[in-house]
Amino acid sequence: MSGNPSRELVVELGERSYPIYIGEGLLAGFGRTAEKHGLPKKSPILVVTDEKIAPLYLERVVASLREAGYEAASHVIESGEQAKRLEVLGDVVTTALETGLDRDSTIVALGGGVVGDLAGFAAASYMRGVRFVQAPTTILAHDSSVGGKVAVNHPLAKNIIGAFHQPEFVLYDTETLRSLPAREVRSGLAEVAKHGLIKDRAFALWCDENAEKLLALDPEALAYALYVGCGVKARVVSQDEREGGLRAILNLGHTIGHALEAVAGYGELTHGEAISIGMCGSARLAEKLGVAKEPVYGPTRKLLAKLGLPVALPAHFDTDAIMEAMMHDKKFRGGQMVFVLPQEIGAVDIAKGIASTLVRDVVESLKQGESE
Amino acid sequence: MSGNPSRELVVELGERSYPIYIGEGLLAGFGRTAEKHGLPKKSPILVVTDEKIAPLYLERVVASLREAGYEAASHVIESGEQAKRLEVLGDVVTTALETGLDRDSTIVALGGGVVGDLAGFAAASYMRGVRFVQAPTTILAHDSSVGGKVAVNHPLAKNIIGAFHQPEFVLYDTETLRSLPAREVRSGLAEVAKHGLIKDRAFALWCDENAEKLLALDPEALAYALYVGCGVKARVVSQDEREGGLRAILNLGHTIGHALEAVAGYGELTHGEAISIGMCGSARLAEKLGVAKEPVYGPTRKLLAKLGLPVALPAHFDTDAIMEAMMHDKKFRGGQMVFVLPQEIGAVDIAKGIASTLVRDVVESLKQGESE
Ligand SMILES: NC(=O)c1ccc[n+]([C@@H]2O[C@H](COP(=O)([O-])OP(=O)(O)OC[C@H]3O[C@@H](n4cnc5c(N)ncnc54)[C@H](O)[C@@H]3O)[C@@H](O)[C@H]2O)c1
Ligand SMILES: NC(=O)c1ccc[n+]([C@@H]2O[C@H](COP(=O)([O-])OP(=O)(O)OC[C@H]3O[C@@H](n4cnc5c(N)ncnc54)[C@H](O)[C@@H]3O)[C@@H](O)[C@H]2O)c1
Ligand SMILES: [Zn+2]
Ligand SMILES: [Zn+2]
Repeated sequence: MSGNPSRELVVELGERSYPIYIGEGLLAGFGRTAEKHGLPKKSPILVVTDEKIAPLYLERVVASLREAGYEAASHVIESGEQAKRLEVLGDVVTTALETGLDRDSTIVALGGGVVGDLAGFAAASYMRGVRFVQAPTTILAHDSSVGGKVAVNHPLAKNIIGAFHQPEFVLYDTETLRSLPAREVRSGLAEVAKHGLIKDRAFALWCDENAEKLLALDPEALAYALYVGCGVKARVVSQDEREGGLRAILNLGHTIGHALEAVAGYGELTHGEAISIGMCGSARLAEKLGVAKEPVYGPTRKLLAKLGLPVALPAHFDTDAIMEAMMHDKKFRGGQMVFVLPQEIGAVDIAKGIASTLVRDVVESLKQGESE
Repeated sequence: MSGNPSRELVVELGERSYPIYIGEGLLAGFGRTAEKHGLPKKSPILVVTDEKIAPLYLERVVASLREAGYEAASHVIESGEQAKRLEVLGDVVTTALETGLDRDSTIVALGGGVVGDLAGFAAASYMRGVRFVQAPTTILAHDSSVGGKVAVNHPLAKNIIGAFHQPEFVLYDTETLRSLPAREVRSGLAEVAKHGLIKDRAFALWCDENAEKLLALDPEALAYALYVGCGVKARVVSQDEREGGLRAILNLGHTIGHALEAVAGYGELTHGEAISIGMCGSARLAEKLGVAKEPVYGPTRKLLAKLGLPVALPAHFDTDAIMEAMMHDKKFRGGQMVFVLPQEIGAVDIAKGIASTLVRDVVESLKQGESE
């Protein structure tokens, strides 16, 4: 453990409130934290992780749990978005059954958003719901591990089969981030930037100024960014757990982004890359519609480009296919397109009934990626 | 519509309370009922049913919905327990996406417990939850359509992947029961009898006296039995929606029953047949343990046999396999076997920590099926 103090945040959800612990080396204390949160010892715990994370951190978690007196088993899935499918959910359940997981058991997600979403849906649906813990290992997962949205994909649409299932706690060991591939660092910073863009102007500007430090994984800058990012997410979720309204602002860039991921066949673009292009699209749309009170496309594009993220759509993407995929999105409701649009840097609004022709123009223009 | 008045019950769950309508010919008024319950018209409705029910009743429901101004699509699954699997869930979601179902849409289950459980889990998880309506078409579904438990099976265990998802209303057209195969009639009567055995002694005795009428689908006797059966179920669920305690009494006969279904490979025994044998097992176990205050095995066995249900275990069932399957059951918790045991006809208790050797003896003895 380093000298960096660990930080704590709370997602306020009444009886279902839970803490987010952020700090270096926290995985070593996993078992003690499990104990502190009263995870029952009579029932086995299943740690779900992926094939890249397993050799690096799985043993640490399992050993810590066993040391604290837990029976711990593990299930390793393939790495990558493709793992978020029903079949893999079935495999997790096979291990759960073979391990003897019962209603008092806990499923732990040790990994990025893919492991978190899949293992979370397993926890939500195994025996109609068992306890769940998030141990994020990517920057992107500062977003996905908070808020209780869990899901798998369908070939026709992302995250379309899922649930709301809040964890008992989130344990975020920032030491794990050092092994992240550079592309995944950039991808995760897209959601960090998003949290500034939707609700915290000062933080968005701070990200712009500290882009290099963040890309270099400077511990202090990173810990601060994750703390603020998780904080924005936690506050929004506390106010609107099941996305009745406000929570939708977290979807900035995601209507276009999810469509890009679906069209690319889950893999060509990371989630962060897709929403980076999507946030540029939303900013353009906001300017076209005249809902932005200040220039938003320029600054958004500059921030994301500084973070090493794509801001233009590769030319080979088929616009018709993207439009079609958008129609399948959860944010498309009652026949109307719904978009989160920036009003200014740090504030967004939700706009309904947007003409699909206009969206189409914006998607096309993203292929040029002109700087204004 | 016949002259039989329709009956109404309410499942009391605060804001999520909903009515159960029971009567002849109710399907013809499906669209009007949907309207009355405020199902949105802007979003399409998906009716899920199975290949045996579709030719008989699907058109009636779809036409009624369209007449009321709804856009209605349908998805037909294979008939039988095998359909309750993740892959078929994926197929339902494919149709949902292709039909353009959105967050304001409704999924209707038109069928028996298989369609109800599968379509219900689709409604619980599609876009993390959309509206749901139950239109039961089997006797057994008087039980499965009430209470919000939805799930699919896993090859290793029944109903292991699911959710709690309450319907907007239950519309029970008793006219549909006339086309039920005789075996399914008997199977459904097992759950009717169960509702008497767990909580209503007078009703259990009434079932015994009226077994022939029930088997002959006498409209008056049947409507009464379904009304009382649904009523018992509704009251129990109202008191304990998520099975914190009391609700577990509904599992009388199900620990053994589910294991039998799993071992038989879902198909050889219907659910009702399996729990009939299971209820005989519970009664025997109660007598062995001395928790029964009066003879329970004899009367239970007599009632179920009168209803044409199996009361002994076919000899080819492997006892080890049954014991193994029981370990995977949701009712097995913290390493202890949990059983619902009759105290007397019409009252049960939940017993924990039962020695598995004793259960094994009971399973073995069920193969003899001696009458005392
Ligand atoms: N539930 C939510 O609220 C929410 C929010 C945002 C995103 N998401 C989901 O999150 C997913 C993306 O998450 P992600 O970007 O973390 O992807 P990911 O989980 O696929 O991780 C990215 C890659 O990094 C590897 N990896 C993870 N941690 C590592 C580490 N510490 N060291 C080395 N390699 C490591 C993984 O094996 C993978 O190859 C998407 O499926 C997205 O839909 C969910
Ligand atoms: N969710 C719950 O609370 C709950 C409770 C009890 C049982 N269940 C589940 O219910 C399922 C069993 O339900 P089921 O017995 O209704 O089985 P089912 O749905 O398979 O129906 C039995 C058979 O009858 C056919 N059928 C249905 N309605 C018909 C009609 N009106 N006319 C002619 N044929 C018809 C079906 O095609 C099927 O072949 C099991 O999977 C069980 O686990 C769930
Ligand atoms: Zn995202
Ligand atoms: Zn049952």
